[in-house]
Amino acid sequence: MKISIAQLNFHIGDFDKNKQLICDAINKARNEGSELIVFSELSVTGYPPLDLLDHQDFVERSNNTVSEIAVECKGIAAIVGAPTINENPEGKKLFNSALMLLDGKIYFTVNKALLPTYDIFDEYRYFEPEKTFSVLSYKGMKIALTICEDLWDEQPFDNEFEKSRLYTISPMDQLAKQKPDLIINIAASPFSYTRIENRKSIFRNKALKHNIPVISVNQTGANTELIFDGSSTVIDKNGIIIHQLPFFEECIKTFDSEPLFKTSGLKGEIEYDIVELIYKGIITGIRDYFSKSTFTRAVIGLSGGIDSAVCLCLAAEALGKENTLAMMLPSRFSSGHSVTDAVKLSANLGIKYEIISIEKPFSAFEEVLSDVFKGKNNDVTEENIQARVRAILLMAVSNKFGHILINTSNKSEAAVGYGTLYGDMAGGISVIGDVYKTDVYRLARFINRNGEVIPENIITKAPSAELRPDQFDTDSLPEYSLLDEILYQYIELQKPEASIISAGYDRNIVDRVLKMINSNEYKRYQAPPVLRISSKAFGAGRRMPIVAKFN
Amino acid sequence: MKISIAQLNFHIGDFDKNKQLICDAINKARNEGSELIVFSELSVTGYPPLDLLDHQDFVERSNNTVSEIAVECKGIAAIVGAPTINENPEGKKLFNSALMLLDGKIYFTVNKALLPTYDIFDEYRYFEPEKTFSVLSYKGMKIALTICEDLWDEQPFDNEFEKSRLYTISPMDQLAKQKPDLIINIAASPFSYTRIENRKSIFRNKALKHNIPVISVNQTGANTELIFDGSSTVIDKNGIIIHQLPFFEECIKTFDSEPLFKTSGLKGEIEYDIVELIYKGIITGIRDYFSKSTFTRAVIGLSGGIDSAVCLCLAAEALGKENTLAMMLPSRFSSGHSVTDAVKLSANLGIKYEIISIEKPFSAFEEVLSDVFKGKNNDVTEENIQARVRAILLMAVSNKFGHILINTSNKSEAAVGYGTLYGDMAGGISVIGDVYKTDVYRLARFINRNGEVIPENIITKAPSAELRPDQFDTDSLPEYSLLDEILYQYIELQKPEASIISAGYDRNIVDRVLKMINSNEYKRYQAPPVLRISSKAFGAGRRMPIVAKFN
Repeated sequence: MKISIAQLNFHIGDFDKNKQLICDAINKARNEGSELIVFSELSVTGYPPLDLLDHQDFVERSNNTVSEIAVECKGIAAIVGAPTINENPEGKKLFNSALMLLDGKIYFTVNKALLPTYDIFDEYRYFEPEKTFSVLSYKGMKIALTICEDLWDEQPFDNEFEKSRLYTISPMDQLAKQKPDLIINIAASPFSYTRIENRKSIFRNKALKHNIPVISVNQTGANTELIFDGSSTVIDKNGIIIHQLPFFEECIKTFDSEPLFKTSGLKGEIEYDIVELIYKGIITGIRDYFSKSTFTRAVIGLSGGIDSAVCLCLAAEALGKENTLAMMLPSRFSSGHSVTDAVKLSANLGIKYEIISIEKPFSAFEEVLSDVFKGKNNDVTEENIQARVRAILLMAVSNKFGHILINTSNKSEAAVGYGTLYGDMAGGISVIGDVYKTDVYRLARFINRNGEVIPENIITKAPSAELRPDQFDTDSLPEYSLLDEILYQYIELQKPEASIISAGYDRNIVDRVLKMINSNEYKRYQAPPVLRISSKAFGAGRRMPIVAKFN
Repeated sequence: MKISIAQLNFHIGDFDKNKQLICDAINKARNEGSELIVFSELSVTGYPPLDLLDHQDFVERSNNTVSEIAVECKGIAAIVGAPTINENPEGKKLFNSALMLLDGKIYFTVNKALLPTYDIFDEYRYFEPEKTFSVLSYKGMKIALTICEDLWDEQPFDNEFEKSRLYTISPMDQLAKQKPDLIINIAASPFSYTRIENRKSIFRNKALKHNIPVISVNQTGANTELIFDGSSTVIDKNGIIIHQLPFFEECIKTFDSEPLFKTSGLKGEIEYDIVELIYKGIITGIRDYFSKSTFTRAVIGLSGGIDSAVCLCLAAEALGKENTLAMMLPSRFSSGHSVTDAVKLSANLGIKYEIISIEKPFSAFEEVLSDVFKGKNNDVTEENIQARVRAILLMAVSNKFGHILINTSNKSEAAVGYGTLYGDMAGGISVIGDVYKTDVYRLARFINRNGEVIPENIITKAPSAELRPDQFDTDSLPEYSLLDEILYQYIELQKPEASIISAGYDRNIVDRVLKMINSNEYKRYQAPPVLRISSKAFGAGRRMPIVAKFN
């Protein structure tokens, strides 16, 4: 039998577009001789629909779209993902379902049993977990149809305090009793650079454990902070990846099912470079944030530092140089190279730029505040005013010309609160807010892989906010190489302070860093959405009380 | 037997303070002859601890604190709330537990079965639901010990699409089989002005259904956006409220259990006024946001309009007039009365104020942007610059003197995006962000109940942002009386657009309002935390995709 898998980029709530994508893929697959095409989880609505699921008309539109797609399924079955109503008077009102559509009807329905409710996932907020399990029979084949987490009953965790078995049931163990020939898994599995191998292992281990093939279909594209990397896999009964779809690209692949059930010698696993994947992931995130919110143009404040330089390159790649505007906003404290380096970068990229000194508005603020501030020394107040004057200028251009301001804060800064709220923390989307400073350098080197795009001086100069004379980041912070190690252990691995110290880090530094992280929850609360590339990004996946007292 | 209930204000993660509060209450109750004292849900950690529960050292500190409290329980049992480890290798790592402590030991443990995971609740993110049920025996009494939602197996919902039975199990039906004499419910039930009667009904109906008394203990105080109203109740077997603790106040009450089991004629239900409760709730929210983040002083921008006037009165009441600073920041578009009304209000309250014209910094921005904006007409850009200049001035005072800026946006504005990001949307905490404009007027009338505090002209003038000549809110928005009705139906009741229209509202207006709501998710994402007083506030309780396309 020929089977197709469709790794597509759905837009949440855009039922017309999603239907068109699905129907076009069905037609293509039928033309290629397929008898079954598989789409990703909640493909009809887009993932994650969040609280739109509380809206009756949203679910009704989804139901209607499913019916319309079913009509297109002539001579080919399609497995799509959509919410369905839980008709039982008890329990949550919806199921997260996989629906096999055939000849105008819903031929088979499977509801998700394991509902991820951690990190960025909130599925039990909306869905009732399924407790019964049946294999699907189609064309003489018994299929264990599962939805994403249903195969993740045993999962790896970064946090040693976490457990590998979050659920008290294993859907695949239940389904295995019915002797399926094949596992199909429809997923909406967001990108995390530390989880690429984990995900493949999960699927390969299921194939090996049950000695049957696994076909997994993931979506691609981004929805605000969540970036989906696709990389759908077809794994034979020996646990060999015989087909893998590309990372971060739409792709429809038709293949013969026969080789899945034998030792075919086929190998389709894609090699990758982590930094390149992070780069591509962020590009995808920027592109979809703009296109799905129907914007085309970006504005970025270029400081002459590495963060904004990398962001400019990412934006130019995602949106086109003609859609990217750079603004240099020097002050009395800016070094000479801050503008010249930024100009050189813009020229290298062929990007239009504007230079506006912030001196006049900054002086005007000093003047009108002089009475109120009489007798007070300069302090962080004046530094923040500079950062906020820049934000006003950037947002003014954003408002006047319809650009979205790209936020250039990195994860290290965001972690310790080294940034100004309503100043350099402003922007529609934070594109490197989940990238530690040391990884920002890696991205810069990747961007320069074929020659200098980012001027070498931007990469090698000592990081400085240039908000007072001779200021350097290391005046207030440990070296980034040290800081980032501590941050990773606390944020990603959630290690206790005592464990970090006992691993050999200086007690005073660790204590200071952790206090900075915890005392800056209020700032991060008002930060823009952050494109997520790690297993623990700031934003919806990390929910900390603001007024708590701990560490 | 004498029983005490302790309605206290816990601070998340401040184990020393929470332990002190609990131990002081235990001593007081013992001195009053009590044999049992009951505290609220997760009283040891404070509620909601959110992702601090992922931190091993947080849970260990909680465990240690429980042990220390148990040592204090000599001659009196205490029921406290705390997370406990789920020792089963499968399932979430924690339970949300009620622990009866006695003579240095944990005498009995009950784990929560129904884990609210909707609106502002995320409990399944952390906790495994309990599936077995046992009554607790103490001093010859069989107690059905339950935790908050455990009694809410049948609950009212505003959204017609929602169901009343969110769970497939009823803990109280299970416990009833063991013939308990009494129900105790420990809760962390946040204030919502529409749910006060619902909550009492839930408890009264359980008393009536099982013909036994119900003792419910809620926490009070606020943790960032969540305000807990206390109002713990003691209900006799006939469903009569014989004691009710005050709203929004700490209180330890000792009472005799005998009258609970007969028809005593006692009546303790507290009468209330909704507007007064909203007022008190917000005062509590402001006070605790400041005290728990160890700040004492607030700064507010006074526009001469009703929103900032009401916020100033709320802040002055919560923090003291000596801790509240008003700033008037007029522009070339400000009417004469905007400053005089604001000065009069400040004088009425005895509050210090500063007047700074924004003209110079605003002109400086116009000047430095003139080249880039050449040939462009004035538009919302210039309006936003004014709002952002004000934010810079307010934040400068905040930074220089250590005030927290109070955000003055109301719920109607926040809903339709009638506000400037990094401008009037700035602030540490939004105090009326869950109060519709028409209810802001009700609060103003309540504030003036004993004489004019807010000048009458502030209440009666037509709302205006004063960002261009002769601008009024009704230029861009429907009348607030109409707008708020539509907003309530869409946000609180989550009605489909078609239902709102068919209820008699103009199709064009409804369509425009809903589009404004949905297209401004990106703005609200960066808004400050909002003190929650309704059943659906903006913030953590309402999670909408930013780039979705729906409505």
